[in-house]
Amino acid sequence: MLDYKLLAALAAVIEQGGFERGSQALGLSQSAISQRIKLLEARIGQPVLIRATPPAPTDVGRRLLNHVQQVRLLERDLQDQVPMLDDAMPERLRLAINADSLATWWAAAVGDFCAHQNVLLELVVEDQEVGLKRMRAGEVAGCVCAAERPVAGANSEVLGIMPYLAVASPAFIARYFAAGVRAQVLPQAPAIVFGADDLLQHRYLATFGVTGSFAYHLCPSSEGFVRLLESGFGWGMVPELQVRDELAQGKLVELIPGRSIDVPLYWHYWRNGGRLLAGLTQHLRRTALKALLPL
Amino acid sequence: MLDYKLLAALAAVIEQGGFERGSQALGLSQSAISQRIKLLEARIGQPVLIRATPPAPTDVGRRLLNHVQQVRLLERDLQDQVPMLDDAMPERLRLAINADSLATWWAAAVGDFCAHQNVLLELVVEDQEVGLKRMRAGEVAGCVCAAERPVAGANSEVLGIMPYLAVASPAFIARYFAAGVRAQVLPQAPAIVFGADDLLQHRYLATFGVTGSFAYHLCPSSEGFVRLLESGFGWGMVPELQVRDELAQGKLVELIPGRSIDVPLYWHYWRNGGRLLAGLTQHLRRTALKALLPL
Repeated sequence: MLDYKLLAALAAVIEQGGFERGSQALGLSQSAISQRIKLLEARIGQPVLIRATPPAPTDVGRRLLNHVQQVRLLERDLQDQVPMLDDAMPERLRLAINADSLATWWAAAVGDFCAHQNVLLELVVEDQEVGLKRMRAGEVAGCVCAAERPVAGANSEVLGIMPYLAVASPAFIARYFAAGVRAQVLPQAPAIVFGADDLLQHRYLATFGVTGSFAYHLCPSSEGFVRLLESGFGWGMVPELQVRDELAQGKLVELIPGRSIDVPLYWHYWRNGGRLLAGLTQHLRRTALKALLPL
Repeated sequence: MLDYKLLAALAAVIEQGGFERGSQALGLSQSAISQRIKLLEARIGQPVLIRATPPAPTDVGRRLLNHVQQVRLLERDLQDQVPMLDDAMPERLRLAINADSLATWWAAAVGDFCAHQNVLLELVVEDQEVGLKRMRAGEVAGCVCAAERPVAGANSEVLGIMPYLAVASPAFIARYFAAGVRAQVLPQAPAIVFGADDLLQHRYLATFGVTGSFAYHLCPSSEGFVRLLESGFGWGMVPELQVRDELAQGKLVELIPGRSIDVPLYWHYWRNGGRLLAGLTQHLRRTALKALLPL
């Protein structure tokens, strides 16, 4: 069998983002953690970590982390059957969620489940286009994102559609679009972009035939994004769910009423993820469609 | 003089988080960017980059990035005096802001300034305790955070105080605190923590004499944090500004009414940051106190 003391050291350093925090999480000295990882590398015959800030797993390190994640979930099932093993602490579940889901429907959809199962969440926020890399890296047990194709060892299923609207403040629209939303004006009217992976604004511009560069602010925060929109910094694509009140109150206005971009959201989870993850998957099947539209 | 082609390559790789994106931002091939950075390292006689994902600057790399950031701001002043140099594109300003400021007062406080100055923001979100490391790393020109002491070459001044309240949903309070908020119950009642650097919940627990470990969810998103609170996942510390409506509507309730933790916020900016940064500083002095309390 593998030496799980060594694997736990690797997982702690990656999950906590450093040797110091990793050692604190395990209640060990930094040199003890460091020795365990060196021993693991000596046994495997290759490095498992890239020593950077924060440390990153090598390819083989990633495969080991995937394995640790799945073993932990299976251990939970075992604890149900052999209660003496249970240390009465709530289970921790690491999940990657796109920021807009976290800012809107996610909490209401899974709150009951987490309370009943006594599970504590460790959420990692990722743009919907890139959350899967956390699954591939073995850092999370499940992931909500816009990519359909599962990573090796995982399943994916569609949760529903999140429609995005192009909106701006009335003052911004008066300043830039008084003569209508035209292809000539759009590149100069600043957009707000969530991050380098957020291509929704590009896709909206493409519907006007605008494909070159355009002016934009970068704001990697869902709520900050809406605040910038309200304060007239620019126009941007936001989930209809998130700005329903602002639209009703007239604080934000659609650029072209009724023109949305529909983003499908998928739930990815390890196939051998144990009963907790299977239960969460069943629960999500029922609750996600209370907020999302059917595909 | 320094070869700014080489420095620009270094800045692009760090700011864009990789060689591929850095080369796209400069419109160069990846091998051209790579050669420029190697040449820079050959001239300086030491590495400027740690080749990880994403790449990180070495100590000397960081000093070079600080310098690039300041030169860019000085160039903007020059363009005002020598308009032929101006390429008519809006200036970009990279700033680090704590997530809770971005989710609340920031946009309203600086919206007018940015629109009048035709400046585009690139915001980096950092927990209020750690934003300064972005200044030190030379990645941003200014920073809103809870640390007072400026980094070398920068000034800091207080903006005001953001009071944080400990809140939870009525259902959560009924479940865990029906007999009052007591030190014995607090470690078992799950908290919500923004990230490893968020110690506000620890500080609140310490006011009850609770200093050991406690159950918590991790949620690195300001709006997601409030959604988890509403859905009864746990209790947590949030800016009073952010949950005013939820408190008025009874969706959230204070654990102990009137017991707040006051977080002072500081504005850090490069001393030789040029007129744009000086103007933003003057503007913030006037507008931040519309939302924050005086120190």
